[in-house]
Amino acid sequence: MGKGRIKLGMLGGGKGAFIGIAHRIAAYMGERYELVGGAFDSDYDKALEFASDLQLDASRVYPDTETLIKKENLLPESERIEVVSIVTPNFLHFDMAKKLLEGGFHVVCEKPMTMTSAEAEILADLVKSSGKQLCLTHTYTGYPMVRQMKTMIAAGEVGTIQRVDVQYYQGWINPLIHDEKLRKSIWRLDPKRAGISSCMGDIGVHGFNLVEYTTGIEITAVLSDLNTLYKDNTLDVDGTVLLRLAGGAKGVLRSSQIATGEENNIMIMVYGDKGALKWQQENPNELTLLKENHPLQILKPGHSYNAQFTKDSTKMPPGHPEGIFDAMGNLYRGMAKAVRGEKLENGEFPTVQDGVRGMHFIEKVVKSNKDGNVWITI
Amino acid sequence: MGKGRIKLGMLGGGKGAFIGIAHRIAAYMGERYELVGGAFDSDYDKALEFASDLQLDASRVYPDTETLIKKENLLPESERIEVVSIVTPNFLHFDMAKKLLEGGFHVVCEKPMTMTSAEAEILADLVKSSGKQLCLTHTYTGYPMVRQMKTMIAAGEVGTIQRVDVQYYQGWINPLIHDEKLRKSIWRLDPKRAGISSCMGDIGVHGFNLVEYTTGIEITAVLSDLNTLYKDNTLDVDGTVLLRLAGGAKGVLRSSQIATGEENNIMIMVYGDKGALKWQQENPNELTLLKENHPLQILKPGHSYNAQFTKDSTKMPPGHPEGIFDAMGNLYRGMAKAVRGEKLENGEFPTVQDGVRGMHFIEKVVKSNKDGNVWITI
Amino acid sequence: MGKGRIKLGMLGGGKGAFIGIAHRIAAYMGERYELVGGAFDSDYDKALEFASDLQLDASRVYPDTETLIKKENLLPESERIEVVSIVTPNFLHFDMAKKLLEGGFHVVCEKPMTMTSAEAEILADLVKSSGKQLCLTHTYTGYPMVRQMKTMIAAGEVGTIQRVDVQYYQGWINPLIHDEKLRKSIWRLDPKRAGISSCMGDIGVHGFNLVEYTTGIEITAVLSDLNTLYKDNTLDVDGTVLLRLAGGAKGVLRSSQIATGEENNIMIMVYGDKGALKWQQENPNELTLLKENHPLQILKPGHSYNAQFTKDSTKMPPGHPEGIFDAMGNLYRGMAKAVRGEKLENGEFPTVQDGVRGMHFIEKVVKSNKDGNVWITI
Amino acid sequence: MGKGRIKLGMLGGGKGAFIGIAHRIAAYMGERYELVGGAFDSDYDKALEFASDLQLDASRVYPDTETLIKKENLLPESERIEVVSIVTPNFLHFDMAKKLLEGGFHVVCEKPMTMTSAEAEILADLVKSSGKQLCLTHTYTGYPMVRQMKTMIAAGEVGTIQRVDVQYYQGWINPLIHDEKLRKSIWRLDPKRAGISSCMGDIGVHGFNLVEYTTGIEITAVLSDLNTLYKDNTLDVDGTVLLRLAGGAKGVLRSSQIATGEENNIMIMVYGDKGALKWQQENPNELTLLKENHPLQILKPGHSYNAQFTKDSTKMPPGHPEGIFDAMGNLYRGMAKAVRGEKLENGEFPTVQDGVRGMHFIEKVVKSNKDGNVWITI
Repeated sequence: MGKGRIKLGMLGGGKGAFIGIAHRIAAYMGERYELVGGAFDSDYDKALEFASDLQLDASRVYPDTETLIKKENLLPESERIEVVSIVTPNFLHFDMAKKLLEGGFHVVCEKPMTMTSAEAEILADLVKSSGKQLCLTHTYTGYPMVRQMKTMIAAGEVGTIQRVDVQYYQGWINPLIHDEKLRKSIWRLDPKRAGISSCMGDIGVHGFNLVEYTTGIEITAVLSDLNTLYKDNTLDVDGTVLLRLAGGAKGVLRSSQIATGEENNIMIMVYGDKGALKWQQENPNELTLLKENHPLQILKPGHSYNAQFTKDSTKMPPGHPEGIFDAMGNLYRGMAKAVRGEKLENGEFPTVQDGVRGMHFIEKVVKSNKDGNVWITI
Repeated sequence: MGKGRIKLGMLGGGKGAFIGIAHRIAAYMGERYELVGGAFDSDYDKALEFASDLQLDASRVYPDTETLIKKENLLPESERIEVVSIVTPNFLHFDMAKKLLEGGFHVVCEKPMTMTSAEAEILADLVKSSGKQLCLTHTYTGYPMVRQMKTMIAAGEVGTIQRVDVQYYQGWINPLIHDEKLRKSIWRLDPKRAGISSCMGDIGVHGFNLVEYTTGIEITAVLSDLNTLYKDNTLDVDGTVLLRLAGGAKGVLRSSQIATGEENNIMIMVYGDKGALKWQQENPNELTLLKENHPLQILKPGHSYNAQFTKDSTKMPPGHPEGIFDAMGNLYRGMAKAVRGEKLENGEFPTVQDGVRGMHFIEKVVKSNKDGNVWITI
Repeated sequence: MGKGRIKLGMLGGGKGAFIGIAHRIAAYMGERYELVGGAFDSDYDKALEFASDLQLDASRVYPDTETLIKKENLLPESERIEVVSIVTPNFLHFDMAKKLLEGGFHVVCEKPMTMTSAEAEILADLVKSSGKQLCLTHTYTGYPMVRQMKTMIAAGEVGTIQRVDVQYYQGWINPLIHDEKLRKSIWRLDPKRAGISSCMGDIGVHGFNLVEYTTGIEITAVLSDLNTLYKDNTLDVDGTVLLRLAGGAKGVLRSSQIATGEENNIMIMVYGDKGALKWQQENPNELTLLKENHPLQILKPGHSYNAQFTKDSTKMPPGHPEGIFDAMGNLYRGMAKAVRGEKLENGEFPTVQDGVRGMHFIEKVVKSNKDGNVWITI
Repeated sequence: MGKGRIKLGMLGGGKGAFIGIAHRIAAYMGERYELVGGAFDSDYDKALEFASDLQLDASRVYPDTETLIKKENLLPESERIEVVSIVTPNFLHFDMAKKLLEGGFHVVCEKPMTMTSAEAEILADLVKSSGKQLCLTHTYTGYPMVRQMKTMIAAGEVGTIQRVDVQYYQGWINPLIHDEKLRKSIWRLDPKRAGISSCMGDIGVHGFNLVEYTTGIEITAVLSDLNTLYKDNTLDVDGTVLLRLAGGAKGVLRSSQIATGEENNIMIMVYGDKGALKWQQENPNELTLLKENHPLQILKPGHSYNAQFTKDSTKMPPGHPEGIFDAMGNLYRGMAKAVRGEKLENGEFPTVQDGVRGMHFIEKVVKSNKDGNVWITI
């Protein structure tokens, strides 16, 4: 384990790829990473040009994952890339993550981690056996007020949970789905490239993750009602999932990509016998606390009343709104602490286990719907 | 059919009964009713005292429904009570409404209309055969922006509906349910007095009604997951219902009486292929319209851009918030128009048919849960 | 002093006059008044027709104020009108109120009470000498959360006040003022009918009243900067007023009738050394409390944490929004208590003294602007 | 003028200085700068240690501005620092900026640019004569929806402006000012270190800048009413300023550091004869548009309906909230374009002229108050 900045590599994220920019900014934010190379583009010439824009040494630009692994491992440990961020198309994630872990690298992986739960389990085993870290960018867990929500629930602030309600509504597939040609042309609805689910696989799973993250309780069974809207479309674009949590609490997960006009409307509400907490992603710096016979309370970042974990997840005084890059930056910061063996708070970044659970969720939700809206145990 | 003010009678609603006050204010608002008598209290002396407070003639204060019907029918038509409002405990509604309709009176009935769908069907038949009106006070349909929502959907503003999501969250049963003695003591959880359902019967049914009212589409099947929280409690206090609408659209209804800290949080979201509309009861004078590639729009009462029906449902210029009494007043106004044979907009007040559908909804939701969360056709 | 319902008369408020409807609904709400007659219209035939709609006895419909006073005084005390509501054009208020007070009637008067402070002082003297009540309908003081604000400030919740900021923005004059003909045609900009001020006289004065009502502190001096927008327009349609409060606190009042697109956007913010309170009229059921190192709190009506005065000013449980009619209803209820000699909370209705102070405010604000934006003592 | 990344230096911003972090993140965000050195700390050893954390070459760590200038100028142009960010205490800004401009460097300067308008004018002359750029970090102008507001106003969307209202409320001085010792101990209230004004100098000037930025119109005169709260405190902590804009529009600027409980509550409202626009910093991704007879509209970033300048100021699709670091990042990006001679939109970063106008504003506001609340021309 080295000192100083962590050497960072990247797979994908070449010119114009906004997800690559997001990961780089997140890495820069904590001033703990130094981007030194990667395999940025399947077109090697473009990769070289892009690397030159970033002022990177051409010798650290690789044509593919295998070469990166081989060549970096020839470098002295102090110069070698330690963490590699995977920001390629989804179907490549598993293979890349597998090779990187086997090759001795820590991995930051965009969501979804894999295409199947079987693959996810393989990665989980590999993380265990390799001793390397894997950070899955369920970015919403990096928001300070989501962390405050988790901390408060853990501290018993809302008591025993008796209802959970999570929503993830987007509308972006609506303008594409009503024309047959158009809907056949988008990768998100192509099972070969997108896997077995569109709505639940891409965004519903974030809702699932937020429930487990904030409550600290596992979802044990699901009953789903999915909608593909057209018969010739095989992947869900909308759905509702009844939830059963360990301990018996009930809940519901609602998700749609055809909620026309919605942008990225994630919301979570957790009701316990002592109070309730609510959070919305599009207004991420407010956490609402409901208590019987008390005024509604709105907590915000930067205040002394927040938990230490929350305070550490913000960089500015109250009233200076931070956003989604800052949330992702918090995940990268957590990963840096893990890589350097520093003490971590519970929940500083989503791990391979979150990826495993997410893939199980997706598969079980699809199965429940296929089997006629029946309960399936996770 | 007389002219001038409609003579109004009331069953229940005696001293201190806030629902009686609400109905009287609603009736006063449009200046089309004149309260002349009723059977206000099971204690006749209290009824007389109360009537004296209201400056009513003691001769029009009756000990019970039967006497009211008999005595009023002896009066000349021009003096006789024409409409009777039923604001007694729920289990009395059916019998009273039946007798009133048979006795030749129009009826305004508090919700729920009956205890069973069989009773509801009887009233529906009676309304038909008697030619009398029945107004069921699903008060939320009286809000101007709910009416605007209905009108815009009917006009195709959101296109073909592809998702419906309705919520009704309250928290008032939470402080009562966790103590065994306490929860056994409240009438709302006693099947004899409350019927087969608490949460769905009392508030979920409002959500059901709002969906059918605003979309103009019937809900054809339900799959429910209800929660009684304790084994010795037999009535649901929380639940989620998957919805199927005529034409195939899917939806979800979420309702709870143990959503700790929630007041009266009703919300409806309707997503079509051309746009979406959202409304929240606690902020009733805003209607949100989402359109792809357009700024979010918020419509408010009193503006020229609203439909005529909406304009007629408000009394003040923009920016002067009206509330729930005004909403109920709009139902009473609609009922007055019906009683006087004036031209009605579609949806000026909920009728006996809304009551019939509501009772079917409650029964099917309870059955779906009992049968193991399966689809039941309504 | 009689018992039972208070006999109410009305000057103005004939067919179609929305302010008359508002006053009648407000009077009905508490079930303490009975409208028995009035001089509703300068056209006596129309008045009779209107009274017939309201089911009033034609013998109590009068051609003018003088006749009402004379004839009613011939009736036995138990039948006689006790309170008269003045809802005529502004320039008639003073003369009517004066005659009514001299004639032995209590008065409810729409705002503005008079055209000049001299007239206001005359009414104040008359109220004193006659022992009759005058209620000036500064309706916003009837909202429960405004009363909660007043009560909390009086109880020291925000400590010593160090800044006050009040806003009243409307946009309705904008579409009328830019055309010379149009602006010359509206009575609101005609000094003969509207008095010396449009914006400050009509709405700024509400802001002034809200400051004094909620803080319990008098405004002692003003420095104003008014805007008539066009040289040929003599009355202000927009302005800012620097405020000095007794005790030295500073503040600002901002008001406009050309704030394009604004409906009725009243807002008050009071900052003390221990906390702050904020309220907005268009969302009247929320009162925001700020405290250092505490989450922002939002108080709502119907809760046990509110003051008794607040609780008494609402009729429904939490989450059932009441509106502006309910607010005015609270003033009428307070007036009824005063007329019947019942115990009053501090601030149940605005009195003739509020009218006196309001007129002084308007005159001093106009003078300050005319004299070149200088401080004028009130 | 070189190519590739711009070499960035920094004065101040050493270990733990959050403003330094903000500037570095802002510089990293666009991937156009490379931090190579600076004079980070008055303690040279600490500076070296800090630079080592940042992985910087020790040879580029300087004890002071003068050495930085001298040594960097000895380097070949391709290696030399091109832009220096000044994030030191306020009283040092002028001297540093002056030397840097004279020494041939572009400058990014934290606010306030100088302590007096005379100094500001000197810098303005120097910018002119040197041909170097100066970017003053009025960060709020970097928010996408502020830029959208500016663009829409310039395009005539609200027509001729007739009222401007800007607010900047904070509460942080409240807990410090009521104790005599405490208030004497904070630099912000010490004229030697803070200049002639606290509230107006630190935050009021942001409001001034936002008005001129969004409207594109100069403020020509001010009349102020400032509050020091205690006699032994010489600097304003609160105040209201009446504004006169070129062309005659009127407005008001309200600012406070003792608005207890407020975080960083900046708000601007611009009313024209065709519509109005409103923006709030604590909810920066919403821009409200009011139009007569139209629903209220809320514009958000990332949408096709926004201007190109707005689109270029955001990195993510709609619904992914960006924050204050992103806003500052936009200023750095604009500065990079200027340094590299690329085509600029109008308003990509605040220049030395904004600094000059800001200093005049502060001086005139203080003078107006001192002279007895009189109009002073800017």
